[in-house]
Amino acid sequence: MTTPRLTPLAASLPADVPFVGPETMEREAGRPFRARLGANESAFGPSPRAIEAMARAASEMWKYSDATSHDLRHALADRMQAEPDQIVVGGGIDGLLGTLVRLTVAEGDAVVTSDGAYPTFNYHVTGYGGELHKVPFRNDREDLPALLARAAETGAKLVYLSNPDNPMGSWHDAQTIEAALDDIPDGTLLVLDEAYVEFAPEGTAPRIDPEDPRVLRFRTFSKAFGMAGARVGYASGARALIKSFDKVRDHFGMTRPAQAAALAALGDGGWLTEVKNRVETAKTRISEIAAANGLVALPSATNFVTVDCGADGDFARAVLGELVARGIFVRMPGRPPQDRCIRITAGLTEELDALEEALPKALAAARVRQTG
Amino acid sequence: MTTPRLTPLAASLPADVPFVGPETMEREAGRPFRARLGANESAFGPSPRAIEAMARAASEMWKYSDATSHDLRHALADRMQAEPDQIVVGGGIDGLLGTLVRLTVAEGDAVVTSDGAYPTFNYHVTGYGGELHKVPFRNDREDLPALLARAAETGAKLVYLSNPDNPMGSWHDAQTIEAALDDIPDGTLLVLDEAYVEFAPEGTAPRIDPEDPRVLRFRTFSKAFGMAGARVGYASGARALIKSFDKVRDHFGMTRPAQAAALAALGDGGWLTEVKNRVETAKTRISEIAAANGLVALPSATNFVTVDCGADGDFARAVLGELVARGIFVRMPGRPPQDRCIRITAGLTEELDALEEALPKALAAARVRQTG
Repeated sequence: MTTPRLTPLAASLPADVPFVGPETMEREAGRPFRARLGANESAFGPSPRAIEAMARAASEMWKYSDATSHDLRHALADRMQAEPDQIVVGGGIDGLLGTLVRLTVAEGDAVVTSDGAYPTFNYHVTGYGGELHKVPFRNDREDLPALLARAAETGAKLVYLSNPDNPMGSWHDAQTIEAALDDIPDGTLLVLDEAYVEFAPEGTAPRIDPEDPRVLRFRTFSKAFGMAGARVGYASGARALIKSFDKVRDHFGMTRPAQAAALAALGDGGWLTEVKNRVETAKTRISEIAAANGLVALPSATNFVTVDCGADGDFARAVLGELVARGIFVRMPGRPPQDRCIRITAGLTEELDALEEALPKALAAARVRQTG
Repeated sequence: MTTPRLTPLAASLPADVPFVGPETMEREAGRPFRARLGANESAFGPSPRAIEAMARAASEMWKYSDATSHDLRHALADRMQAEPDQIVVGGGIDGLLGTLVRLTVAEGDAVVTSDGAYPTFNYHVTGYGGELHKVPFRNDREDLPALLARAAETGAKLVYLSNPDNPMGSWHDAQTIEAALDDIPDGTLLVLDEAYVEFAPEGTAPRIDPEDPRVLRFRTFSKAFGMAGARVGYASGARALIKSFDKVRDHFGMTRPAQAAALAALGDGGWLTEVKNRVETAKTRISEIAAANGLVALPSATNFVTVDCGADGDFARAVLGELVARGIFVRMPGRPPQDRCIRITAGLTEELDALEEALPKALAAARVRQTG
């Protein structure tokens, strides 16, 4: 009896996870977190209409979903000022990024991203055997000219840009991105991840003709719409590229209740406004808590605040560890010099109360660790 | 401006879908089906406990799912007499098959299946560049000795067997499969798709040590549990193979409400018994309707009945077309000689009433077409 023969590529991959989930951490700690501020989820929840739509759809879960997400796709086309055949719906941006990488990246193909940008994108690229080329952040922002220059140098299939970006919360305005489009090298696709764009100031989302073959933009119901656990994302781009997703995607892979919930959520603009207001209030509070502890909160166009802990990565990791030990789930950037920061999601008042209580203790303990 | 450069493999693939969904057919027809009997869904629905669990979980959909499906995986381990690390949960059998093929099949690798067996498995194999070798059904059953012989000849990475099988509804007993295990060629993995096993007679599911590296078995909540639109499947097998799924799977890809619903469904054995009884009643009725029209219903260990239309594939396709035109959604086997049949899912009484009314007309119209 031998074990199944993995492909050489699969055999070479580690059985890593891009992120350890909070439930796993809670099981390991033997108790629940007091504050769930680590995954940029929306603790303010989805629209009541989305909750109701999912509850109503629950009794219909015996039916496979509509494989074309017809109604949702049409509603999203309106939202994106695109045509329905310029939209593909999938299992969150994560799922759609995986499909895109599969379609475009063969073993050895070059892909460009920022050093410290979204790990799940990197996970997909590595998983399909692509070669990642990483460009440093510049002033805590993704360095678009350098990304495009590296793409030209390496003949990259894809170049990844999140705007606003995770994990720093920084952003480029629409004009900057629009002006850069002509610098995208021939044959490179700009992967524009706009997961957080609903939180950004007016004038952040670039105007791009959906049929422009140089860009594929990704959006999600996971953040502002408060539906991370329902797995609904979408990509908008040129018809030929959108159609190519049909070559390999899991056609019946969406859940039917999530399709219903997303459609209902789209119709509740009032809730989106309410969430954005609550997020702004929470972000202000996080900044005040940071300042009260002598730390600097970076400007953010997202639903999280990245807080500069004022020293190096080892210190920030110690602060993070001490917060987690006190029941405060937060995460942090992985690469220097951004790893001097921790990243705190806009949460509920009681969660921020817990943060306020824990942060000075965590800082003190981290300082003891450092000098100890 | 050039279009993005797909990989040579992706460029070679058609933008086909394994199945056209009933919603698409309804939109094209401009009216809903009277009877939804084509996708082997369970019109009897999920357990009321599953519905309630999903409705309750709806307000928690803002949280990403537990990436390890810990609670569900532990419950499934009990059910499968396996350990939790011998189980992986994924987005239905479709999703899990895709991940398995990705892990094991590189371009040009041989894979063996039956000619006319599950198209979505073939879709994944082709999608990763595998070479499909197809073995004919024998007496309307998958021909296990011939499948294993072909696997040996071709050095296949995977050999696919559904038991009970789709689309014929036939099955092998446990002993037959257990006895064949030693004939699995070295380095070949038996992909045992047991999507319908809950409907099969006692003694159909083989006893296989979960740690046996020659077999990976797949089960689902889509059929007997009535949760096709919730996308929950699982695979059980050797730890090393199960662990390898972590190399590439979409870790946070499950929806949280579906995890909750599946866990609740597992706890409601009474509902499963009720559904099985209703399915048996519906299958008997379908067989009677077939007999009343001079057609022969094949024995079935699933939630559908495959009905021999008594002539060739062209005639069965005509019957199917005439049924669909009359609002009866059914499907049929794709390859001769099994394509002499149509496949009818066990449905609600009113759906079978509609079938009873439509079938004689469809047969008459198909006969006119044939002689016309």
